[in-house]
Amino acid sequence: MALIIDGKKISDEIRKEIKDDLDSLRKRGILPHLSVILVGDNPASHVYVRMKEKACTEIGISSETLRVPETVSQSELIGMIDDLNGKQSVNGILVQLPLPSHINENIILERILPDKDVDGFHPVNMGKLAAGIKEGFIPATPAGIVELLMRTGNYPEGKNVVIVGRSNIVGKPVGLLLLHKAKYGNATVTFCHSKTRDLKMITKSADILIAAIGIPEMITKEMIKPGAVVIDVGVNRVEDKSRKKGYRLVGDVKFDEVSKIASAITPVPGGVGPMTITMLLRNTLKACKKSLGEQGRMS
Amino acid sequence: MALIIDGKKISDEIRKEIKDDLDSLRKRGILPHLSVILVGDNPASHVYVRMKEKACTEIGISSETLRVPETVSQSELIGMIDDLNGKQSVNGILVQLPLPSHINENIILERILPDKDVDGFHPVNMGKLAAGIKEGFIPATPAGIVELLMRTGNYPEGKNVVIVGRSNIVGKPVGLLLLHKAKYGNATVTFCHSKTRDLKMITKSADILIAAIGIPEMITKEMIKPGAVVIDVGVNRVEDKSRKKGYRLVGDVKFDEVSKIASAITPVPGGVGPMTITMLLRNTLKACKKSLGEQGRMS
Repeated sequence: MALIIDGKKISDEIRKEIKDDLDSLRKRGILPHLSVILVGDNPASHVYVRMKEKACTEIGISSETLRVPETVSQSELIGMIDDLNGKQSVNGILVQLPLPSHINENIILERILPDKDVDGFHPVNMGKLAAGIKEGFIPATPAGIVELLMRTGNYPEGKNVVIVGRSNIVGKPVGLLLLHKAKYGNATVTFCHSKTRDLKMITKSADILIAAIGIPEMITKEMIKPGAVVIDVGVNRVEDKSRKKGYRLVGDVKFDEVSKIASAITPVPGGVGPMTITMLLRNTLKACKKSLGEQGRMS
Repeated sequence: MALIIDGKKISDEIRKEIKDDLDSLRKRGILPHLSVILVGDNPASHVYVRMKEKACTEIGISSETLRVPETVSQSELIGMIDDLNGKQSVNGILVQLPLPSHINENIILERILPDKDVDGFHPVNMGKLAAGIKEGFIPATPAGIVELLMRTGNYPEGKNVVIVGRSNIVGKPVGLLLLHKAKYGNATVTFCHSKTRDLKMITKSADILIAAIGIPEMITKEMIKPGAVVIDVGVNRVEDKSRKKGYRLVGDVKFDEVSKIASAITPVPGGVGPMTITMLLRNTLKACKKSLGEQGRMS
């Protein structure tokens, strides 16, 4: 039976470290500030933003949420970002995705000052991540995955890491991170996706498998090398009439069977999920330190 | 015996296409311009720059080379780039690498306006490449490799591409390009490097192998799947007293033996090499079109 990687516990450890750093800043009269822009009334987006606000308050980061209607124009949104870019008191800017279809997401993300881009979605930050330049911002989920690996002693160096899913938010950045010449990197990295032939043969070669596909329980035990470390990024709702809500959450990995042969595995929920907001908090702290001319830590 | 991929011939074809485009622009009174900054007197850099100047002249691109001594300061170099950034007549800016050790290469490369960055080394362009956003500039060698594959009918979709070498100039960008959702992409991509264990097992799974390591003839026939397509990016000098110069050029692949089992292979010289300057010319044309508000073509 695999070690169940406790994302909540590791997340709490890291929040404690962030809090210590925040306390030191506080003594110098410095309070980091995060500004969130929330467009429209997508219920999931509202839930995520509330979670982020709550996490900021709890740890001691000042935050504000600017709520704008679905009908906001692209140029109005750009104007808001420019305002926040110009405010010295704002360390981090986050535009909650997805945006309405009349707004070009790339244009919006590129408008945020790279040094305030705590989501790490600006091309400059993606480019620095790709190039192995460590002063940029790493998107939250990839950074969280690397922490889960490192803090459970699963160093990627020299290992075969197979990533299923090539999204810009998880798959590609986490693979690029694991390619870095660094103690958290130096892995041999394979990117698989919907066009991959004979996926099973490739996933079976993985010492570390990262599933970020968004297909419920797609990764079965036949696809896993015994003893592999399995990181499940998926959060999928499947109908379950036995639950009050009528559904339950499952990952991209068939947990019950894969956990019997993996050496370590993240559960869903309680694995990667809890890390995400923690990494956003850390990026906000890092942005504040950057603004002071001090570098925040990365791993 | 493998098909020998004739980089010179394919390069000539593409230069013909570029020339046609340049001729159309010429009729509208438009002449693209490339500015090259050459620091110090590294003999190899001087050779490369002369080749670039010559290629520009031949095809009909205006160019200038700004030569500065090894002792130039970083701020002087930044000042030169700012000048070129500001000149509307300058479409492309290229700083020949390597730079002297007292200059921070990343700071210099980040100073070039992304829209004039015809080498594609600015983090914004690297980030767009990583994110699959197609309007940025692709570095020359990776773009050339993709053209060699496409123009010999070796479409990467669904194939296992193994890249040996994780440099920011070749290995990483070519792999990211081959991951794009595009007719030249959709490959399953594995990045190997010096920390990879059991390299042979991985290279043997490659339908397309890209060697960009810089170690003479490191890839031997035992590492190749019969019928694979082999792209050799290496250009290494090895001593050869039978030659007038005292050396000959070899790639990273043991050509004589690998060419017997591969289905197609690039020679060294005459494979990837001739494509590189051609792709620089194409990027300069693209930069000029961008400045006119027209998009240049990418594959």
